[in-house]
Amino acid sequence: MDSRSPVGEARSLADVSAPGRVAGPEEGISHEELALAARNHGLPLEALRYDVTPPGLHYVLVHYDIPLTDADTWTLTVGGRVRTPLTLDLAALRSLPSVTHRVTMECAGNGRARLTPRPVSQPWLVEAVGTADWTGVPLRTLLAEAGVEPDAVDTVFTGADHGVERGVEQDYQRALPLADATAEAPEVLVAYAMNGAPLPPQHGHPLRLVAPGWYGMAHVKWLRDITLTATPFTGFQQTVAYRYRQSADDPGAPVTRIAPRALMIPPGFPDFMSRTRVVRPGPLRLEGRAWSGRAPVTGVEVSTDDGDSWAGAELSPPDGGVWSWRHWHVTWTATPGPHTLTARATDAEGASQPLAQPWNRGGFGNNLVQRVPVVCL
Amino acid sequence: MDSRSPVGEARSLADVSAPGRVAGPEEGISHEELALAARNHGLPLEALRYDVTPPGLHYVLVHYDIPLTDADTWTLTVGGRVRTPLTLDLAALRSLPSVTHRVTMECAGNGRARLTPRPVSQPWLVEAVGTADWTGVPLRTLLAEAGVEPDAVDTVFTGADHGVERGVEQDYQRALPLADATAEAPEVLVAYAMNGAPLPPQHGHPLRLVAPGWYGMAHVKWLRDITLTATPFTGFQQTVAYRYRQSADDPGAPVTRIAPRALMIPPGFPDFMSRTRVVRPGPLRLEGRAWSGRAPVTGVEVSTDDGDSWAGAELSPPDGGVWSWRHWHVTWTATPGPHTLTARATDAEGASQPLAQPWNRGGFGNNLVQRVPVVCL
Repeated sequence: MDSRSPVGEARSLADVSAPGRVAGPEEGISHEELALAARNHGLPLEALRYDVTPPGLHYVLVHYDIPLTDADTWTLTVGGRVRTPLTLDLAALRSLPSVTHRVTMECAGNGRARLTPRPVSQPWLVEAVGTADWTGVPLRTLLAEAGVEPDAVDTVFTGADHGVERGVEQDYQRALPLADATAEAPEVLVAYAMNGAPLPPQHGHPLRLVAPGWYGMAHVKWLRDITLTATPFTGFQQTVAYRYRQSADDPGAPVTRIAPRALMIPPGFPDFMSRTRVVRPGPLRLEGRAWSGRAPVTGVEVSTDDGDSWAGAELSPPDGGVWSWRHWHVTWTATPGPHTLTARATDAEGASQPLAQPWNRGGFGNNLVQRVPVVCL
Repeated sequence: MDSRSPVGEARSLADVSAPGRVAGPEEGISHEELALAARNHGLPLEALRYDVTPPGLHYVLVHYDIPLTDADTWTLTVGGRVRTPLTLDLAALRSLPSVTHRVTMECAGNGRARLTPRPVSQPWLVEAVGTADWTGVPLRTLLAEAGVEPDAVDTVFTGADHGVERGVEQDYQRALPLADATAEAPEVLVAYAMNGAPLPPQHGHPLRLVAPGWYGMAHVKWLRDITLTATPFTGFQQTVAYRYRQSADDPGAPVTRIAPRALMIPPGFPDFMSRTRVVRPGPLRLEGRAWSGRAPVTGVEVSTDDGDSWAGAELSPPDGGVWSWRHWHVTWTATPGPHTLTARATDAEGASQPLAQPWNRGGFGNNLVQRVPVVCL
C-alpha cells in the first residue's frame, strides 16, 4: 500500500493538531477542509423557500464526533455558584412549562471560504444557515430553580462531544454572560425538540442550548452540564477560537451575535457543475430570506447589475417572530445575457452588509453580499 | 463591487456548462466543487453506528435543485409500451399492497476526490452512503397492472428535477432493463416512505424509485413518470454520464451495481481540523459496516499496519436482509504511536476492494480501501 503514513511519526497531540493558519495565495481547498465539508453541510439555497427548514436541510457543524446518546438515561446538571445544584432527566425537563421559539441559526464561519486570503477551517461559502422551531424549558426557569449566587458572572455550558482542537483536548464548552442567560428577550432555551420532534443526533439529541440571535457556536449541543462561575470563563472556544483577530497575536473581540444577511433563492435552474443559473426572458420573481441576530431586519435591497444600482424589496410580515428570518421579494424583468444578482439586508441598528470582504483570521462573521450568477437565454 | 462577472459574456448553455474534466496535477479543490460539497453531504462516519441511518445523516446527492413538490396533487404516470396507461396519485399508491426493504445506498461517485488525477465533480472522499427502510409499492405490481407490451426492453424513470449538465438541458432520467425492473429479487420499489415517515424533500418527496443493489443514480427521486420503451434508453445519464471511461472518447461500460466496500467507525476522538483520531493504549473495539450491491458480503478483513497484514473480522448476522450493510468488529490492542487502520470487504462473487485506485475519468465506483490515521497516546 501507499507508504506515506498520514500520521507520520506523530507522538503527541501537537503532532496531529496544528495551529490555525491562512491558506497561501495559490492554495486550493485541501483534503482536510474537504473532509469537513463532506461531514458538515449547509442549506441548499432553494430550501430558503421553506419558512421552517425541513429536517436534514438545516445547516450542521459538528466540531468533533456526534456522540452516542441515550435520552432514557441522560441527565443535565446545574451547579457551580448556585444555592441548590440540580440534576434533571428528560422526564423532569418535560414536566416543566415549555416554550417554542422560531430561531434562525447561522454558523459564525459562514462565508469563510470566500475570503482572500482564506482561513483554513470548515469551508463555508454562504449556506450555513437554517430556521427551526425549538421547544424546551427557558434557561432562566432552571437558573431560578437552582438559585444563582450573587457573585456569579458567567454561565458555562458543556456538551458531550470530545476532541482535540489546535492542540487542546476538550469537551465542547461555551459560556454566556449571566445577563444574557437570564434575559426575558431573547429567551435562551434548553431545547429537547426541533420542529416538533425529538432533536436529531446531529442537532444535539437529546438536549441543546438555543440562544436566539447568537451565532451557532453558542447553541451548545448534547448539553450535559451548566455551571455558574464567579469569574469570566476562559475556555478554548471562548478565548482562543471564535475571536475576530487580524493576526495570530491579536486578542481580538469575541464573536457574539449574528450580523445581518440576505440570501436569495437562486432563480431558474442550475448547471450541475458551475451552479450558474439559467432563466428565461421576462418578468421573474426574485425572493429570499433576511435576518440579523442584533436587531430586527428593516430593509432588503436587490441589485440585478452586480451592485451598481439597488432597489428596495418587499418584506413579508415578521410572522416567525423577532429571531427568525423574514421573507422578501422583488419582480425583475430578465433580459437576454449574463447578469449578477445580489441582495443586502439592513437591520434596525442601521447595520448592513458590506460590498468588500470584512476579513479576519478566523473567517468569522463574513456577511459580504451573496452574488448569484445568472444567464438569461 | 468586484468587476469580474462569474458569467462573463455567457450567451448559451455551453458557456455556463463545461465538458467533464480532470484536475491538473497541482490543482486543489475548486470553488465549484466546494459549492457541491456544501450542498450535498455524506454520512459522518460515526453514524455507521446506527443500523438504520437517522434522517439528515444519510448521504444526499442532488444533481440540480430540490424541486418544490406537493404530495396532495402529485401524480405518477405509467405509459409507453403498455396496454393500459396509468395515472396514480398518492392515495392510489398507498391503497396498494406495500412492502418495506432495508437498503444501503451509495453514490457511484463515492471516493472520487481521493483519485489521482482527480475527476472534477462532486468531491466525495468515502462517506457517500446510508441505509434506510424504504416503504412503497413494488414496481412489478404497477407494471403488471399497466400490462407491459412484449416488445418493451427498457423502463425509463423521469424525476421532476430540471437542470443543465455538460451543455444538455434535461429532466433527470434513468432507465432499468425490463428484467431488473420486474425481478422478484432484488425487488424495485416506488417508495413513498423512508424510515416510516414521508420522504424528506432531499430524498425525493413524495415519490422515488428504490433499486436495491444499484448505485444511487438509479434511484430516481421526485418520480413523476415511468415509460416503457421498445428500444434501449439513450438519455444523458445513461449513455453520457455514469460510464466507466478511461478517456473522453471511450464509450465505457455502464455504471450499475455497488462494488463491495467496508467502512470503519473511526475509533477514539478526532482532531477538529485534521480528523486524525486519538486513542488510548489497550484493547479497543474496531467496528463498522460492509456491503456489496452485487452479492452478499461474505467476509471483512482488518489491517492495523496500513495493509501489511490482515485479520478476519467477526460479521454480525445479516439481520437487515440481503441489500443492507452488515456490521463487523474486531478487537485491537492499541500500542503507543501512529497507526493506519483499514478494512476490506469481500462478497459472495469473490470481489474484494483494491489496494490501488481503480481509476476512471468520471471517478465512479472507487472502492479503494479506507485508511484511518490514528495516534495512540
